[in-house]
Amino acid sequence: MALIVQKYGGTSVGTPERIKNVAQRVAKFHAQGHQMVIVLSAMSGETNRLIGLAKEISANPSPRELDVVISTGEQVTIGLLCMALQEAGVNARSYTGGQVRILTDDSFTKARILDIDGENIRRDLDAGSVVVVAGFQGVDEEGNITTLGRGGSDTTGVALAAAIKADECQIYTDVDGVYTTDPRVVPEARKLDTITFEEMLEMASLGSKVLQIRSVEFAGKYKVKLRVLSSFQEEGEGTLITVEEENNMEQPIISGIAFNRDEAKITVLGVPDKPGIAYQILGPVADANVDVDMIIQNVGHDGTTDFSFTVNRPDYDKAVKILEGVQSHIGAREIRGDRTMAKVSIVGVGMRSHPGVASRMFRTLAEEGINIQMISTSEIKISVAIDEKYLELAVRVLHRAFGLDQA
Amino acid sequence: MALIVQKYGGTSVGTPERIKNVAQRVAKFHAQGHQMVIVLSAMSGETNRLIGLAKEISANPSPRELDVVISTGEQVTIGLLCMALQEAGVNARSYTGGQVRILTDDSFTKARILDIDGENIRRDLDAGSVVVVAGFQGVDEEGNITTLGRGGSDTTGVALAAAIKADECQIYTDVDGVYTTDPRVVPEARKLDTITFEEMLEMASLGSKVLQIRSVEFAGKYKVKLRVLSSFQEEGEGTLITVEEENNMEQPIISGIAFNRDEAKITVLGVPDKPGIAYQILGPVADANVDVDMIIQNVGHDGTTDFSFTVNRPDYDKAVKILEGVQSHIGAREIRGDRTMAKVSIVGVGMRSHPGVASRMFRTLAEEGINIQMISTSEIKISVAIDEKYLELAVRVLHRAFGLDQA
Repeated sequence: MALIVQKYGGTSVGTPERIKNVAQRVAKFHAQGHQMVIVLSAMSGETNRLIGLAKEISANPSPRELDVVISTGEQVTIGLLCMALQEAGVNARSYTGGQVRILTDDSFTKARILDIDGENIRRDLDAGSVVVVAGFQGVDEEGNITTLGRGGSDTTGVALAAAIKADECQIYTDVDGVYTTDPRVVPEARKLDTITFEEMLEMASLGSKVLQIRSVEFAGKYKVKLRVLSSFQEEGEGTLITVEEENNMEQPIISGIAFNRDEAKITVLGVPDKPGIAYQILGPVADANVDVDMIIQNVGHDGTTDFSFTVNRPDYDKAVKILEGVQSHIGAREIRGDRTMAKVSIVGVGMRSHPGVASRMFRTLAEEGINIQMISTSEIKISVAIDEKYLELAVRVLHRAFGLDQA
Repeated sequence: MALIVQKYGGTSVGTPERIKNVAQRVAKFHAQGHQMVIVLSAMSGETNRLIGLAKEISANPSPRELDVVISTGEQVTIGLLCMALQEAGVNARSYTGGQVRILTDDSFTKARILDIDGENIRRDLDAGSVVVVAGFQGVDEEGNITTLGRGGSDTTGVALAAAIKADECQIYTDVDGVYTTDPRVVPEARKLDTITFEEMLEMASLGSKVLQIRSVEFAGKYKVKLRVLSSFQEEGEGTLITVEEENNMEQPIISGIAFNRDEAKITVLGVPDKPGIAYQILGPVADANVDVDMIIQNVGHDGTTDFSFTVNRPDYDKAVKILEGVQSHIGAREIRGDRTMAKVSIVGVGMRSHPGVASRMFRTLAEEGINIQMISTSEIKISVAIDEKYLELAVRVLHRAFGLDQA
């Protein structure tokens, strides 16, 4: 008998029929003697519908009031799931974020969890009930409703699991686990049985959008046993996200390959090679809320240097325009860009102890004639920017080169 | 400068455009220096949509969980109106029932208000904000979400007005006041400038569905000045609902004519004329949740009597079936019925001091050849059951006979 937190996303509770299916699954666990806490997202599409209503009223709605409106989505699903559980003969009780009391700061629309009171939940569990909690939401000190930002229900699940010391936090989604790479690009991609928190963070931030990144950080910090599973499959162990030390035998060098299509590169040529130039270039870009990813500054010569960085493709035109506006001020010779870039990253804690990973990556790409335009590295990942047309090829050959297609 | 509570119904906030219109109206009052508390219903259709979702999951959903689900409708509109007010340059702050704290008993789906904490509201008003409160909902002692039943937002408005000692409670709806009768039946029907609480109660319960009846009782009990207005008209004083004593000069004898089409009559013939027979007949009917309205027991002869009552037409078949089931047990000779009945009532506190009202009513109907099948009276109303085909004629001739078409 275990204490299990299960989180179901919007697709898993997208229709009354699917909510009944979730109830059946939860009832089965409950019948096996487990204590169950369920965290739910809003029905798929509902949060967008509510945001749409708000946008019809105001282009820039008050964050406090936006949270009042959008937090209703999860409130609906928790009530509906409790009804479905009761239909299945299981006692169940719903809690909004405020009712649990999930205390957050007052950063409306992107609040952070400060504390969770587990008392009501434990009392209901001890009385034999399933507890159903609204994800994505909480209350601040003054009782104002807050939300945690997109994907915040994952964070609610993990934080609840930490607060009530659950044996495991299971995140149910529409995929059956974390894969070595996207199976739509590489049919040989394999589901991983385990992945470390650090690898998962790199995979998630690089575009494998299985888990909300903040929830993974949270799980790592509080040592919550986290598992990703499919809500549409009866069987399967999903992918367990582990602390590295517990899992260091036969660790593969590379666990997965992440990629992102929608990149663009901007190069500022012939800027004076002096301190502060990076800030002069990137400051105005950041002020416009454009996220900058890879950044490279070449070695200077003749007192000038070239400066390159990548942005998300939808931000490309905006970023170029900003730079053209400050070009004469920073003394740059020319602004160049390329809007058809992609990024490919190999991720694995094994590369810490295995030298030669980078060179194997570069050789593999060179053998296919794929030109590497930018490189950036961290302790457990190597990313390259390449022409977008080579993306699928690059992912496929790297997947094979690092043996990811073999169990 | 006054403290005003305004309540807007579902039609008035049915679209983002209409919510903006409400914001404009509220902003105008606010600009005039009034302190404003706004109570809202859910967008029209939303509560039914939510109930529909629940019914897809369970034919008989848990009342506690149903309240969790359906209370979200008002939570959406309060957030949206605050956004619209802020767009109009007015500070505004929304409150759910639980945030106000509107304390109710724990009768889920039909809770009664026990107490309202006005402190947060007064603080915001003093700070110059408009306060926007979700109607229809509250919380019980344990923090469970409750709802007040259909039309409960009117009750929230009146109860709030009583709690914060508002100068007036204005109920905005899709009609511009209370009429002497339905203008679709009698084109000469006039809007009343005032009506007493007692008359309003009789009018409301008889089918003039302008105000939720509980809110009228509440307003009468706590002496809240209550006004019904149209949210679709810029001007107009609506109808003020008054305490009788304040308004006893030139009181008309009759204030209005209410009617209900969907009645049916059932007569149980030849039952033993002995104590307890009414209970034996009506007990099983009441047990089946069939509302019985007018009841008549004729004077008996030969040890037997006839017993008649009216029910809402949709309940007719059910009621007849029940009675046929107990017919032999109660010793009745025959069950007869008529499903095409209507009820017409004249209402007015003036009839207390004016004898002869009933006979004028009966003579008026007789002159048109309309047969009265049943009569029931209270201190301020006289109701008759007639064949449905005479309904419009009866309402028209009574409207004229009592001078209601003259200002």
